Amino acid sequence: MSVIQYTERQNQIINIVKKNQPITSEAIAKKLNLTRATLRPDLAILTMSGILEARPKVGYFYSGKSNLDFYKDYIKEIKVDDIKSLPVVVDESTTVYDAIVTLFLEDVGTVCVVSKGLLVGVVSRKDFLKSAIGGVDINKIPVGVIMTRMPNIIVAKPEESIIEAAEKIIEHQVDSLPVVQDAEVDGVKGYKVVGRISKTNITKIFVDLGTKASI
Amino acid sequence: MSVIQYTERQNQIINIVKKNQPITSEAIAKKLNLTRATLRPDLAILTMSGILEARPKVGYFYSGKSNLDFYKDYIKEIKVDDIKSLPVVVDESTTVYDAIVTLFLEDVGTVCVVSKGLLVGVVSRKDFLKSAIGGVDINKIPVGVIMTRMPNIIVAKPEESIIEAAEKIIEHQVDSLPVVQDAEVDGVKGYKVVGRISKTNITKIFVDLGTKASI
Repeated sequence: MSVIQYTERQNQIINIVKKNQPITSEAIAKKLNLTRATLRPDLAILTMSGILEARPKVGYFYSGKSNLDFYKDYIKEIKVDDIKSLPVVVDESTTVYDAIVTLFLEDVGTVCVVSKGLLVGVVSRKDFLKSAIGGVDINKIPVGVIMTRMPNIIVAKPEESIIEAAEKIIEHQVDSLPVVQDAEVDGVKGYKVVGRISKTNITKIFVDLGTKASI
Repeated sequence: MSVIQYTERQNQIINIVKKNQPITSEAIAKKLNLTRATLRPDLAILTMSGILEARPKVGYFYSGKSNLDFYKDYIKEIKVDDIKSLPVVVDESTTVYDAIVTLFLEDVGTVCVVSKGLLVGVVSRKDFLKSAIGGVDINKIPVGVIMTRMPNIIVAKPEESIIEAAEKIIEHQVDSLPVVQDAEVDGVKGYKVVGRISKTNITKIFVDLGTKASI
């Protein structure tokens, strides 16, 4: 795959087709005062790149294909599993204070809460701040009391594309998503936490895509 | 500009040039059991796209040009000014508690602190949480006491590229940057806060680039 900068003549051809579609190569050549043979390589490049579409016995059409299709195809191939971070997990009996200490020690924005190995909730920095100023006795209250509880948790699966995960983050206004796999513990079905994906991961991949020589 | 998906033969040519550069079109044709005339459109496309370079009387070279150059050029053109959000600003005499209330009401992760219209500090959700659990009397202490103070603040200028801003966010491990302009108030030089740029803005632009039909 590659990217092509069109020549002036190719851009002229694109404009002619846009305005006159469908149009035959003879008609294009006439408008440009050129021979069909001269135009042949240009038309080959324009149809190969997908911006023009050639239909036999009809002529050329303008496809309107976006320049960013390649980028889109590329980032759709990046999976959550490829860039996820390690999860930070506490048990639901942990006090709010201890969970906050974990948050600072691990330097994350959200902790996952588990019970018997299965995800039961998440707590964000915002939730903690609300508790801390809200008169909750953070040394006594367990984190399970203030967490956002299953099934109201937005999660990502490892095989999901990073674009889907980023869309969930924006749509649900959260800072990160637990990355989970289906699991069953003592006959109870749920999620095992295998990672987390945050706005930081997304920002990093954005920087990588925009600065690295090649990926 | 456009994006081209190479044909199998074009990929074969790229590989031959990679291994044998510099190589003439005659030599490439021979390796593929084809005529030079047959290869001419393929070689035209490959040199136009920049992946191969043709030097007269020497032959073809492999340029190693990255597929993502177009994407990089494109996102370098997006400026902080194009996607920045409104700033959330409090005066340095505001109590920590009132600043936290502002944080929740505006639903942001960081507030900027100003004095006489000029930026003097920033306070993040993390800073607030530290104060809230650290025994600070948040109803009495002004936000100026707990803020990160100028000149230790990482800022962005409106004309900066969004990639530079994202790099600063990652490098300095902050959630957002105040977007500032040089200003002078009563003979004091400093920054006027004109916006903010956060990981949320970056995540949104990442989603937009990856999902929108065209930009």
